[in-house]
Formats: sequence, structure tokens, C-alpha cells
Amino acid sequence: MRILITSGGTSEKIDDVRAITNHSSGKLGKAIAESFAAEGAEIDLITTRHAVKPEGKMIHQQLIESTMDLERTLTELMTANTYDAVIHSMAVSDFTPESSVTLEDLEAAAATQPADLPKALVTIANKRTEKKISSDTDHLVVVLKKNPKIISLIKKLQPQTILVGFKLLVDVPMIELLNVAKASLEKNHADFILANDLAEIRGEKHHGYLINKQQKVKEAHTKTEIAELITKEVLKLEEAK
Amino acid sequence: MRILITSGGTSEKIDDVRAITNHSSGKLGKAIAESFAAEGAEIDLITTRHAVKPEGKMIHQQLIESTMDLERTLTELMTANTYDAVIHSMAVSDFTPESSVTLEDLEAAAATQPADLPKALVTIANKRTEKKISSDTDHLVVVLKKNPKIISLIKKLQPQTILVGFKLLVDVPMIELLNVAKASLEKNHADFILANDLAEIRGEKHHGYLINKQQKVKEAHTKTEIAELITKEVLKLEEAK
Repeated sequence: MRILITSGGTSEKIDDVRAITNHSSGKLGKAIAESFAAEGAEIDLITTRHAVKPEGKMIHQQLIESTMDLERTLTELMTANTYDAVIHSMAVSDFTPESSVTLEDLEAAAATQPADLPKALVTIANKRTEKKISSDTDHLVVVLKKNPKIISLIKKLQPQTILVGFKLLVDVPMIELLNVAKASLEKNHADFILANDLAEIRGEKHHGYLINKQQKVKEAHTKTEIAELITKEVLKLEEAK
Repeated sequence: MRILITSGGTSEKIDDVRAITNHSSGKLGKAIAESFAAEGAEIDLITTRHAVKPEGKMIHQQLIESTMDLERTLTELMTANTYDAVIHSMAVSDFTPESSVTLEDLEAAAATQPADLPKALVTIANKRTEKKISSDTDHLVVVLKKNPKIISLIKKLQPQTILVGFKLLVDVPMIELLNVAKASLEKNHADFILANDLAEIRGEKHHGYLINKQQKVKEAHTKTEIAELITKEVLKLEEAK
């Protein structure tokens, strides 16, 4: 059995000294990797610098920083190898910095009402010669553009793989969390979505719902329980194939 | 001898899952703390989660995240204790997120030409109910406001302390680097500024210039050399007092 796991959080550069980072300790990804390793799986793990790392001879790690790095590494691995399952637990930035300008630049650009304001701001930013943005302005405006949705690539690359996606929301009612997870499952042709709420995560305590295609929901209350639940359900689906 | 050292890089929240972080390994701060500890100094170290940490019984650590945390912790420590020197090597974010809006929100707000665009955007952002910004927009606009300059607080709190500030630029001519460092020294009433260029930092190799009030410049080429140079010069100035 060969499994691909993503874990940790991406980091998107604003300039040479600043970045937008997505919080993720990597602890859940570590627990999932170790749970599959205990079942004898060979694991490729794509992870990030500050994420905690699992241990195990059968766990091969690749470090990435940005969403673009993730896209490239995941595509390379999924082109070279066939995976029984892909567990995509990395916190991926939905956006990446496109331009950084001063408030004065923004107001001047907006006043001319260009058809494409983000493009006008990129032009302004490119005219700047310094590599580190100066702090001689009261407000800095960072325009971010949408990143490609990495989860949507997985079934395109390998339609037969079992895909486990993750959905993290913050302090929402349970019914909303489950509905958003269901929509993500359908959109990305996932086999499972692990839905969780940041307000219900604290240390090892981690409340999660694992939803499958038949809309059955199973619950877990710690990172270890979530890892074991995912492993058990993936193995069951793999055997039923 | 009692020394206050700041080390690592700040992290400024955009929302509950995203932050703007300043890159800093903390390695230089670690080397400086260990160098002063070797001289028998008692050290208070303000540092950040991902920074590497020094070891030593006389090094007392306090973890912070944001520039606001740093301001509070530094003020508390400098009110409670008298320091012979403050070595401010932390990479502090010049800006902190004030509002995050969609491009459509920004264009609508700019079209009405409000006297205070950032304030108008804060109002729009506050009307949003979700705690995590939705990814259902092509462009996200993050407006950042200027943070207070922490270095400028130090001599106000303790005029007698020896202040060592840091100036990091990216790929600039040496003469520009020295001029910017000199301006920072004068503005913040620092006794020394360590000027360095990101293009000249790679692993343990770390090119730095230590400038004093008499505009004398001393050079160092590794993190260890920089740490020892700062320690030696601070001790010399302390003895001459």
C-alpha cells in the first residue's frame, strides 16, 4: 500500500523578508502518517519547514513552502507513482500576494478607474526598485490573487485513488460545517472529507467529522482518533474495491 | 551584568488561520545570548515560537507573537528591571493587518472617494460575519497599518542602557546600507547598529557591519563573529562609562 500525505501549512512570500503563512502545527498529519505506517504502508509526505515531522523508515519526506511548490511536487509524485490513497491535510493558502503598494498608490490608481485595478497595481509595484518594501508609509496595501485549488488536481491526476480532503472552518454551527464539507466532497470528487472547526481544536483535543460519499458521518475527538478513523475507513474502502 | 535580547521574527494575524510573518531563524540572537552568557551575564530573552533557542541557566525566555505583544513584554521587563544593554535583533513587522476585503468591496469604497479610505475598509470588514475570510473571491485586499517602532521605545524607557539595534536591507550597495544604519542610530539614540544585507547571509556565513556613535565601522563575517563583536564592544563601552 502506498499513501501520499500532505501536512503542515504553506507560506506565500510578500517580499524577501515577509510572508503570509497558514497556521498548522503538522501534528494531525504526523498522527495520520504514523497510523498508516503502523499498517505497513509506504508513505510519501509533502510537508513544510515548521511542521512537526513523523518518524518511520517507510515515510519519505519532501519539504515545500508555497502553494505553487505544492502543486509542482504533488504533480511530480502523482505522475511518477500510483497511490492507493491521498490524504490532503495541509493548510493551503487560498491566496498569494500579487502586488504590494502604498495607500497613496492605491488611491491614485483607483481614481483613474482602470478596467483592471489589480493589474494596474502590479504595474505600480513593478516600477518600485527596492526588494524590501519601505516602511515610510502609514498604510501598506497587499493585493492577493486566488491560488489554484490543489485538492481539485488529485482526482484528475489519479481518478482511482482514494481521496481524503480536509475542511477547516472557524466557530460555525455543526450543520454549516457538515454542509460545507459535503459541498467540498462533491466538487473535488473526494471519497472522504474530514470537517473540523478551529474553535474545537486545542492541543491533542481535536473534534472532527469524517463524511463519506454516502453522507455517513463518523466522529472523532482527538488527533489520534482522527488519524485512526481515517486509516480504518481508507483501508475498508480499499478492500471493498 | 543584565542584558535584554530580542530574537526571532514577529507574526501578525490576518484572521484566525492566516498571519503575516517576518522571516528570522533566531540563530543570530541565539549566538548573541550565548556569547553574553559566556561572560557571566544574566539574560532576559524575548523570542518567538519558531526561532531557535539558546541554552543556558542564566537565560530566561519569554515567547511573544505580534509586535503588540513585543511592545507590552519589553515595556514590562524594562519597567521591572534595569539592563546594562538591550540587543534588539528581532525581525519586527513594520505593519499589521488592519482590514481584509474583497476587490469588489475595495472598488466600491474607492469610487465614493472617502476622506479616509482605510477607515471605510475597516467598516466594511467589520460588517463581515465570518471569522475566516471566504475564498470565494478572485482577489483579496489586505490593508496594513504601520506598527509603532519598538526600537524607539528603548532609550525612552532607560536612557542609560546601551542600545544595539539592527538594520536588515536586501541587496543594496554597501554605502547605502551604512547610511541607512547611521540614520537609524541617530533617530533611535542607539549606541550601535548592526547593519546587514540579506544577500550576504547564508547559513553560518553572515556579513555584518557594526557602527558606533563615532561612526566607526567594524566588520564581521559569521554569526559567531557578529555575536562576539557585539559582546566585546558592549563590554568595552560599559567599562568606559
